[in-house]
Amino acid sequence: MISDTIAAISTAVGEGGIAVIRVSGPEAVGEVSRLFRGAKPLTEVPTHTVHYGFMVDPDTKEKLEEVLVTLMLAPKSFTTEDVVEISAHGGVVSVRRIMELLLKQKIRLAEPGEFTKRAFLNGRIDLSQAEGVIDLIRSKSDKAFSVAFKQVEGDLSRRIQELRQTLIETLAHIEVNIDYPEHDVESMTSLFIQEKCGAVLEEVERLLKTSNQGKILREGITTAIVGRPNVGKSSLLNALSGQNRAIVTDIPGTTRDVIEEFITINNIPLKLLDTAGIRETLDVVERIGVERSRTALNEADLILLVLSGGDQLDEEEVRLMEQISGRQSIVILNKMDLPQKIETEKVRQFYKEELIVPMTVKDSEGIDRLEEAISSLFFAGKLESADLTYVSNVRHIALLHQTQRSLRDAIEAAEMLVPIDMIQIDVRMAWEQLGEIVGDTAQDSLIDQIFSQFCLGK
Amino acid sequence: MISDTIAAISTAVGEGGIAVIRVSGPEAVGEVSRLFRGAKPLTEVPTHTVHYGFMVDPDTKEKLEEVLVTLMLAPKSFTTEDVVEISAHGGVVSVRRIMELLLKQKIRLAEPGEFTKRAFLNGRIDLSQAEGVIDLIRSKSDKAFSVAFKQVEGDLSRRIQELRQTLIETLAHIEVNIDYPEHDVESMTSLFIQEKCGAVLEEVERLLKTSNQGKILREGITTAIVGRPNVGKSSLLNALSGQNRAIVTDIPGTTRDVIEEFITINNIPLKLLDTAGIRETLDVVERIGVERSRTALNEADLILLVLSGGDQLDEEEVRLMEQISGRQSIVILNKMDLPQKIETEKVRQFYKEELIVPMTVKDSEGIDRLEEAISSLFFAGKLESADLTYVSNVRHIALLHQTQRSLRDAIEAAEMLVPIDMIQIDVRMAWEQLGEIVGDTAQDSLIDQIFSQFCLGK
Repeated sequence: MISDTIAAISTAVGEGGIAVIRVSGPEAVGEVSRLFRGAKPLTEVPTHTVHYGFMVDPDTKEKLEEVLVTLMLAPKSFTTEDVVEISAHGGVVSVRRIMELLLKQKIRLAEPGEFTKRAFLNGRIDLSQAEGVIDLIRSKSDKAFSVAFKQVEGDLSRRIQELRQTLIETLAHIEVNIDYPEHDVESMTSLFIQEKCGAVLEEVERLLKTSNQGKILREGITTAIVGRPNVGKSSLLNALSGQNRAIVTDIPGTTRDVIEEFITINNIPLKLLDTAGIRETLDVVERIGVERSRTALNEADLILLVLSGGDQLDEEEVRLMEQISGRQSIVILNKMDLPQKIETEKVRQFYKEELIVPMTVKDSEGIDRLEEAISSLFFAGKLESADLTYVSNVRHIALLHQTQRSLRDAIEAAEMLVPIDMIQIDVRMAWEQLGEIVGDTAQDSLIDQIFSQFCLGK
Repeated sequence: MISDTIAAISTAVGEGGIAVIRVSGPEAVGEVSRLFRGAKPLTEVPTHTVHYGFMVDPDTKEKLEEVLVTLMLAPKSFTTEDVVEISAHGGVVSVRRIMELLLKQKIRLAEPGEFTKRAFLNGRIDLSQAEGVIDLIRSKSDKAFSVAFKQVEGDLSRRIQELRQTLIETLAHIEVNIDYPEHDVESMTSLFIQEKCGAVLEEVERLLKTSNQGKILREGITTAIVGRPNVGKSSLLNALSGQNRAIVTDIPGTTRDVIEEFITINNIPLKLLDTAGIRETLDVVERIGVERSRTALNEADLILLVLSGGDQLDEEEVRLMEQISGRQSIVILNKMDLPQKIETEKVRQFYKEELIVPMTVKDSEGIDRLEEAISSLFFAGKLESADLTYVSNVRHIALLHQTQRSLRDAIEAAEMLVPIDMIQIDVRMAWEQLGEIVGDTAQDSLIDQIFSQFCLGK
């Protein structure tokens, strides 16, 4: 049972109009109440109400800050404990003053992710939902946000729990067979196991199929743009980030810093190799021998090679095509508005038709085709069929792979009529591996490790 | 009359546990209600209550985000209008999605400072209080925060309004004398004017005396640390920022970035010349001829010269003392734990006793003495007598100077028995200049310009 009270700054750090400090635990209301001077003591107000007043140092009686205090009493709060949120003027000193005051009371500083961890430990959300919360905060594109949001909503959890239900029924069946072998023929049980585990395996494999895409949506496709000077790489970069800007930084205050290495081509997030890296790669043809460019090329999941339709291919470009055509790579034939001199047949030696995208970058002509080409490489063209539950978390993916192996073992053993108490071990393992995804069977150390990746105040 | 509804992200941008979007105006409740799915429609809930639910796109019915929505109905809100605050999971995409949805309704993006501007235009706070709000957010030290907080609380406003009251009474008296000269002897009125304006002038000059200190508290003392290599400059820097870290970054989440050029010696904020600059200055003795070091020295309000007590002075050090002793400068005699070889009498040729601070930096020995020395240079030793209202804003300071001039003119004219309708002009001007501080007589363009310096969402 959790018995102490924790506090942390929950908003991002920096200058803002509002900063919020969150306090959670049995002493939250009592302790904050002693520091708050408003129309009524916080101990006497109803839950889910907001109160204007001042944080006051109880020793010096000095008013420290003008605040709004919100009460959310157990169990209807983020942590399911009593929660008090103190909303103050944004700025570093303001929150520091309040935090210092709080930490002098029976309140300690929350660890990163500790509020969410309490929500998990108190059973309001499971582990995969909690993990979705981090992904939500870190998401860099709409699609990634949606994937994480579904996870927070419990979409993945429900599917996993259904599969576990099937497995637990199977285990019960096996149990009965072991305890009362006279009730059942072992071979019938084997068939039952094959059928049930087969069904679960099928769903696990379906989930695994979404995992590549899920990971991409979550993390973006690491992308290098290459081509010789003046071929239109910078214009492409600008055209793409311009499009992105229209979505993201239309709204001032969502600074570009946070996302500056991300662009989205319609719905697909590309993570550009770091800007310095990109500048290097931009002139990769000239500097193909240079170590950093090579590294950039090697790290990329996707290489966009920009060629000018208005010029003939040079030796370097041909060499580059040879070098990268084995990779996930798309050719952009830029400058389609000029008289065409490029030897397209040579390009076709290395690239399939659908990976050659004619564009006139300066008019943003052809961006849809580019999206299609990327879709066909990474999503088998099916990006938009998307009521799918994507598995995007590497931990979940690894556990699904383990479950897949356990289930295959179980099915294979059942086919070979291995004694069912042996098969039972595999089925139980699959059940536990799935349980680790939602946290039912997860070790404390794993749980600690997962929440330590959270930001402070969440 | 303001009639439109505005919205902005009010928390600092970045990854955080919570982000808050603020909506203010007559349509705030109605429009947000259409986008919110909770237990009750927002149009039916009482003021100052919090509601859990989801932001939902009304066209697609898609749930966009899990939120807490707080209602603060007019007039008991920050702007005095209906205010709705939407608290979402922190992160860039989450707030962008909600903002995009809001801006598709009868809601427009708020300009920087527009919420505070509305609080001002609706009469909840005056202009100097509004300006205090920015200072509050930007403040880098406790003391600066306190100064700003008093201003927000209306401390300066009250004093200014008292002075204006005296002036308006004086103007009324003059008016009577002009309209009914038979009721009064003009020379009596002159005496009255001298007395009243004299009293106001005295207070204005008292306020102006705080302004240097106010500005320092607000902006920090621009400081360069100089000395030859290995004399203990870096240790001093570390000792000072270590002390600072104990106060400021004890609490994780208040990143050092924001304040990294600020250290505080007990209560005095020092703004170190930018870190690169400091690194230059650190070896200023060797590189005294170098342009950048010179610039750093010239820009500094305060120069801390570090000498080693364990070594004899070298030529460069003597030359440096000659050069900077005319400036606000303090000598730190470091390494007092070593056998002393330094020629202190030479140092005394350039520095008064109280500006020579013996220290053993590595043991943080002597930091209190250093604070005293700085206090004596910048605050005439009186930093702690601080129930003072500090005037820290350059605009206020300029207006107080203008008021001072107008009042002096009025008094002088009264003494010379200038016709009182001439004097009236000066008194009225003083009244208006003070009025500009609190915003009663400020031009729209000035008001726009002031609020445009705010951060977005405030």
